[in-house]
Amino acid sequence: MIELALIGIGTGNPDHVTAQAIEAMNAADLIMIPVKGPEKTELAELRRTLLTTYLKNPETRVVEFDLPVRDAVTTSYGATVADWHGAIAEAWETVISDTLDPGTPGRVALLIWGDPMLYDSSLRIAGILGRRIPLRPRVIPGITAIQALCAAHAIPLNEVGAPVVISTGRQLRDHGWPDGAETVVVMLDGECSFRTLEPEGIHIWWGGCVSMPQERLVAGALSDVGAKIVAVREELRARNGWVMDIYLLRRMSRKP
Amino acid sequence: MIELALIGIGTGNPDHVTAQAIEAMNAADLIMIPVKGPEKTELAELRRTLLTTYLKNPETRVVEFDLPVRDAVTTSYGATVADWHGAIAEAWETVISDTLDPGTPGRVALLIWGDPMLYDSSLRIAGILGRRIPLRPRVIPGITAIQALCAAHAIPLNEVGAPVVISTGRQLRDHGWPDGAETVVVMLDGECSFRTLEPEGIHIWWGGCVSMPQERLVAGALSDVGAKIVAVREELRARNGWVMDIYLLRRMSRKP
Repeated sequence: MIELALIGIGTGNPDHVTAQAIEAMNAADLIMIPVKGPEKTELAELRRTLLTTYLKNPETRVVEFDLPVRDAVTTSYGATVADWHGAIAEAWETVISDTLDPGTPGRVALLIWGDPMLYDSSLRIAGILGRRIPLRPRVIPGITAIQALCAAHAIPLNEVGAPVVISTGRQLRDHGWPDGAETVVVMLDGECSFRTLEPEGIHIWWGGCVSMPQERLVAGALSDVGAKIVAVREELRARNGWVMDIYLLRRMSRKP
Repeated sequence: MIELALIGIGTGNPDHVTAQAIEAMNAADLIMIPVKGPEKTELAELRRTLLTTYLKNPETRVVEFDLPVRDAVTTSYGATVADWHGAIAEAWETVISDTLDPGTPGRVALLIWGDPMLYDSSLRIAGILGRRIPLRPRVIPGITAIQALCAAHAIPLNEVGAPVVISTGRQLRDHGWPDGAETVVVMLDGECSFRTLEPEGIHIWWGGCVSMPQERLVAGALSDVGAKIVAVREELRARNGWVMDIYLLRRMSRKP
């Protein structure tokens, strides 16, 4: 039986790592680090930095492996993603069987950007691998980009007693403002999809590369700062070769 | 100028504390611990345990104070909450002025259950106090009950690329299932408000005292496990004198 620890590591600030995450890193026989592409390279670098800081167990093997690249969507988005997840499960299995003694129990770990529960496929891939080899996933939560964004702006996520919608750029583009929502957090948005909204009455708190040294923050009425956000995001992307961003939108009758 | 650090400490597992939170505790001149009522007593105890484990700075003063009790709602809920927040801001101000040298800058900290961004009033109270004394809030994110719940059940929060609604028991009772939602996380629910839903097709992942030694978890089709959750929750409440719980509801066409 393999224990597969999915360790949430936060979004770039090594100080956001929890005591539990550090313990799980040091309890692992094998830590697998995916590498590929410019964004992945930066994330691999962050993972290496974390391990340099926190991994003290000389017995832990750290193995880098090429993450399979997702095919262009041919038949359906769902089928393409399922194929891709299957390929990643195979890559994990190869690293595990190449590194650990066959048949013996082992503790394997992956360092997951943010928290494994939020817009991350590791739990689903672990499910696929678990149908092929005896595997027990263990989840260690980590600080998400949502929390890092709210902390950086020093704002609450929710209005008093009110609901919050967490969504994606694609959802916002395809379905507009969620019915009845007051607060919407948008993730996985490569296209500044807030531009598809009628900005009147909407306030935005935006962050690019939140929690990283290159962090940039912009907040204000969407009608005032929307264009600035597009420019700052492009500037970050041009400088780093990639950018991750997140934003919170709130409909408000008065300025905060 | 006072720096007021709102330090997210997670929901009961001392290992969920981040390196940043530990650093902020040790950087503080004054840590204020609210005490009052059975639930607050347990939370105060948890905070003391955390400080025993992580606070190494002998210069940091730890001061307990009585948290004002919220009045029964007389005029309006909003006005009652505003009064209560005002009273808490006054209590903070008293502790600060009684402990720190007047007029000198100081670092004050509060240990916040979960994360200060999520269903917590400290940022709003800091806003009130900031209109009376020079104050700069600083937010340190912490693991929320949502993350602790998903980690304990080893489930993702979201379906692939799909939105998530975070809401409260009151919202669920008053407005039913949120329009268009597939996944709903319910917090601040003292009444097992899932009972007001038509359970057909809804799966629930429930946790009581998540991340604490007395943690209990129940998951299954809502129609199968709803009554069991009510019973387990009551058992926890009877044994501890209080209970905090949280659950994730997902509409699904097939079993997970």
